[in-house]
Amino acid sequence: MTMIQSPIQRYLEDLHARIAPLSDGAVADYIPELQLANPGWFGICIATHDGHVYEVGDTRQAFTIQSISKPLTYGLALEQNGKAAVLAKIGVEPSGDAFNAISLQPETGRPMNPLINAGAIATCGLITGDTTADKMDHILGSFSRFAGRTLEIDAKVYQSESATGHRNRAIGWMLHNFNILADEPTPTLEAYFQQCAIEVTCHDLAMVGATLANGGVNPVTGTRALAQEFVSQVLSVMATCGMYDASGDWLYQTGLPAKSGVGGGILAVQPGRLAIAVFSPRLDAQGNSTRGVAVCRAIADDLQLHVMDGTDRNMTPVRRSLTRRSAASKQRRSESASGYLKRAGDRIRLYHLHGALVFSTVEEIIRRLMARAPESEVFVLNLKLVQGVNPAAARLLSDTQKALQTLGKELLFSDASVCWHKLVDAGVDPQSFYADDDFALEHAENRLLSKLQPTHPGDTPFALAECALFRGLDAQDMLLLERFLLSRTYYKNQSIVSAGQASNELFVITQGKAMVSTPTEHGIARLDVFPPGSTFGEVAFVDQSPRSANVTALNTVECKILTRDAFSDLENEAPKVKIRLMENIALSLAGTVRQINRELASLK
Amino acid sequence: MTMIQSPIQRYLEDLHARIAPLSDGAVADYIPELQLANPGWFGICIATHDGHVYEVGDTRQAFTIQSISKPLTYGLALEQNGKAAVLAKIGVEPSGDAFNAISLQPETGRPMNPLINAGAIATCGLITGDTTADKMDHILGSFSRFAGRTLEIDAKVYQSESATGHRNRAIGWMLHNFNILADEPTPTLEAYFQQCAIEVTCHDLAMVGATLANGGVNPVTGTRALAQEFVSQVLSVMATCGMYDASGDWLYQTGLPAKSGVGGGILAVQPGRLAIAVFSPRLDAQGNSTRGVAVCRAIADDLQLHVMDGTDRNMTPVRRSLTRRSAASKQRRSESASGYLKRAGDRIRLYHLHGALVFSTVEEIIRRLMARAPESEVFVLNLKLVQGVNPAAARLLSDTQKALQTLGKELLFSDASVCWHKLVDAGVDPQSFYADDDFALEHAENRLLSKLQPTHPGDTPFALAECALFRGLDAQDMLLLERFLLSRTYYKNQSIVSAGQASNELFVITQGKAMVSTPTEHGIARLDVFPPGSTFGEVAFVDQSPRSANVTALNTVECKILTRDAFSDLENEAPKVKIRLMENIALSLAGTVRQINRELASLK
Repeated sequence: MTMIQSPIQRYLEDLHARIAPLSDGAVADYIPELQLANPGWFGICIATHDGHVYEVGDTRQAFTIQSISKPLTYGLALEQNGKAAVLAKIGVEPSGDAFNAISLQPETGRPMNPLINAGAIATCGLITGDTTADKMDHILGSFSRFAGRTLEIDAKVYQSESATGHRNRAIGWMLHNFNILADEPTPTLEAYFQQCAIEVTCHDLAMVGATLANGGVNPVTGTRALAQEFVSQVLSVMATCGMYDASGDWLYQTGLPAKSGVGGGILAVQPGRLAIAVFSPRLDAQGNSTRGVAVCRAIADDLQLHVMDGTDRNMTPVRRSLTRRSAASKQRRSESASGYLKRAGDRIRLYHLHGALVFSTVEEIIRRLMARAPESEVFVLNLKLVQGVNPAAARLLSDTQKALQTLGKELLFSDASVCWHKLVDAGVDPQSFYADDDFALEHAENRLLSKLQPTHPGDTPFALAECALFRGLDAQDMLLLERFLLSRTYYKNQSIVSAGQASNELFVITQGKAMVSTPTEHGIARLDVFPPGSTFGEVAFVDQSPRSANVTALNTVECKILTRDAFSDLENEAPKVKIRLMENIALSLAGTVRQINRELASLK
Repeated sequence: MTMIQSPIQRYLEDLHARIAPLSDGAVADYIPELQLANPGWFGICIATHDGHVYEVGDTRQAFTIQSISKPLTYGLALEQNGKAAVLAKIGVEPSGDAFNAISLQPETGRPMNPLINAGAIATCGLITGDTTADKMDHILGSFSRFAGRTLEIDAKVYQSESATGHRNRAIGWMLHNFNILADEPTPTLEAYFQQCAIEVTCHDLAMVGATLANGGVNPVTGTRALAQEFVSQVLSVMATCGMYDASGDWLYQTGLPAKSGVGGGILAVQPGRLAIAVFSPRLDAQGNSTRGVAVCRAIADDLQLHVMDGTDRNMTPVRRSLTRRSAASKQRRSESASGYLKRAGDRIRLYHLHGALVFSTVEEIIRRLMARAPESEVFVLNLKLVQGVNPAAARLLSDTQKALQTLGKELLFSDASVCWHKLVDAGVDPQSFYADDDFALEHAENRLLSKLQPTHPGDTPFALAECALFRGLDAQDMLLLERFLLSRTYYKNQSIVSAGQASNELFVITQGKAMVSTPTEHGIARLDVFPPGSTFGEVAFVDQSPRSANVTALNTVECKILTRDAFSDLENEAPKVKIRLMENIALSLAGTVRQINRELASLK
């Protein structure tokens, strides 16, 4: 088998080759362990929000996470303390200063943001636990959930960081002085040194980023690493403060929230979409990986990932819009009811939705509903292909349902499995959900009939000769024909015909109702309901192929049955009767062709 | 007719009522004209990217745009000078200072960013024109395109600004000192004062924001106000510098790029989605509208608009994925060719795409293609519902096509109207586009056949008795029947049957080929091609309803025709022959029912 290389993989390989000659900058040297890094190491990963990773170069080489730990610990602090408590201790303003600037607000001592050292140490102070070990349990657990594997501390790097971290100790004591760190700062400082010394690979960083792009859930393990509500906050501080004194320029040029570490790693995230991780230990004057910066800029530019570019966000949520004229329930109606429904067909409207329901997609739906509301009676929203609904959107749908209700109109939902809980939590009436369009439309039709047609006529009594199959036959023909027909009775829920079965029989219902259905994942889909007078089974009767669906008695069903043998015998005894029956069968098939063609056209 | 209020409108009205009591702050008083504002004025608009506006309160009250002009003029400067030239004169870093801080970089004199006064004056200097009037022609033209109506300057406010703008004059001369303003600064300063005095309403601001959300095109007028490539840059500086010394907190809390003016306006944008505009003249200590800030925060929070929230961005671009087993071309094939195609059906794959093609959606498509490539021969991407393709995505599709080509496989496009140009510009083969799936699939099938079946057998000669309609008839029956049939010849492109026509004729092709089609917006959709031996027109022949499609001769077509009168006469002369014909018609209809049902199932 020929191996086929994805053009995306090839793009990354070309980029790696293009950037590899860039040998500006130097490996971090403030502790001896970092100096051991091979300056030639160079790995690039792109990880998608659903967990697919493209990688090239030294993507499985371990190195220490360093400052890329800061936004992750900040997310954990938000989860453990809430936003208000964290903001009281640490600001979110870009400092305009270098990474190791102390940048405390003069009166409060509050660090400007969580991504400078002072802010990161204050963040560590907010992590649950009185001891370094307790804090690190939480931090390592969180980081491991982000990466999708158990991460560990590089003990040598930690010891070296701790042995030389005097400036950070000074910051720690200054924070204690301002009561930003309430307790003696040593356990917090040691936790800070340890979190910076956590060992990761470029591939790990990509998975961390994919988890942020995926709303906090690691897309490979399915484990939540960060509560959804704090993902935007973590990405915001990366966007405004992630690249220290060049953060404005970084967002302007790449449009991606990002964070780098002196270990040579850099992580950038396109929210909702993907992550870029680069590892190359040579650092520029700002302490960012030289190649890492070049790679992120190139990818953001080449692949057009700017977060302020909204061109991929203006998609309509309405996949298809139908009225009852092209989408009717499978419930058979009396002739008068059918007439009513036909005339009032556009008072029932069905919308097939897709994508994510957020404010601006739901706004479009509501706008369309409101425009149609004056002349409509019932709206059905099919949610089968909806990928999610956020609370704001759910609330608006609930409000819309209530607004329609006060006007005597209904908003129903079908196929809502994924969203049911969130909609009900937001106040949507639990009675307004239906398994599929068919049942929702049946309810809508019943409602319309009850309004339009105060007295609902029952099924009219039925005489055999009135059946469409026997059209054109006179009384004498019918007498003769009856000798060729079998009679059979089926009871409620009894199977009349099974899909896949061979069959030589054509059915006419003289009493009761039968349902045609096919099995689905979660139950059955109803294809049709046959009232008395219906003929069914023509297709298999004609082409002798297996039955294509199940037919089940809905109550006591009396049938007349024409077998193929009897039909064959009829040819000699009464050819004209056979011709009439053949004509009626052909007519019924022609009607079916026209009807499914209409259904097909409405779906295209 | 009952008026129905949208829940979104009601939300805005409730919000207006909720925030109206907030009377903190004071109307700007640094010039007398601004002090004339009624402190009670309060308007809110939400405008969607497609130009729908929800509004409540004083949304049509004129006021001066003030600093909200700054990002707009910055966009114009980018268009007129290019990004590099603008960045050489004006930075994009948040200053961390108040709006009127001078904040020049010490050595270059470059203002920190275009949204502080110094940067905005430098921006005015970059606008084409040596005189104030020339510059204002460009600026007013641009702002008017944004707003969708002709805007004008409030002369009194301008004169007052100019009369008191000594601090800004100082900045102008300082910029001239550093050669950031190359010329004597007065024309630039006067243009700056005038741009701040442009009169707008809250509704205008909302349209300005909707234009930014819509990629630079005013969604109501359809006029471009800013080149697409600079929209992200304008929104970026609003995101990092728009709210002066509280910009980090603003992005963290609301997630929306925004800009306020001392006239009482404030504009926030959700990229790709919508804009919020608020007007209320009372200002807080930072010079932002007190109610405006409160409204933006409430809306961003209530409606969950944070730009770093990616939950609405992870939608699959593949609406439907099919193989040739469920989606075949309408071209009829010889029995042996049909057999080949049936066995090799999954070597042709058809994907119906939707939404915007950007890197991460195209990545998903490419990933799916690559996974299938080893066992596939031809891929067809249907672009009918694709709303756009950016250059990065187009390039990757072109690369994918070439990668497949080197392996002897093909990537075709159907229904590509919107994207054709951009794809061809990016290098996609212009020969790989087809009007619809049918023609693309026909090409794919021909290719598969030419590979699988080295010698392509022609149509086999055809004898009347072999036609499916005459199955079961012996030579004697055929002799008798021929007396009842008409013969007719049609020439290339001649119409045989027209949709809507009544018809009493059933056709059998004895020589040549005919095409069934229906008209579409841009031409025709081919429904079927009938080779010699085919019967057509059964449905209308049976139910006497009008024809549902057109049939046209593709070359010289010889037909045998059975009229309904002749069919009727046959009943007495040869009832068994008529029964055979009826059976064959019913069989053909049953086959059609099964085939359309399969097609229907593949679409659901």
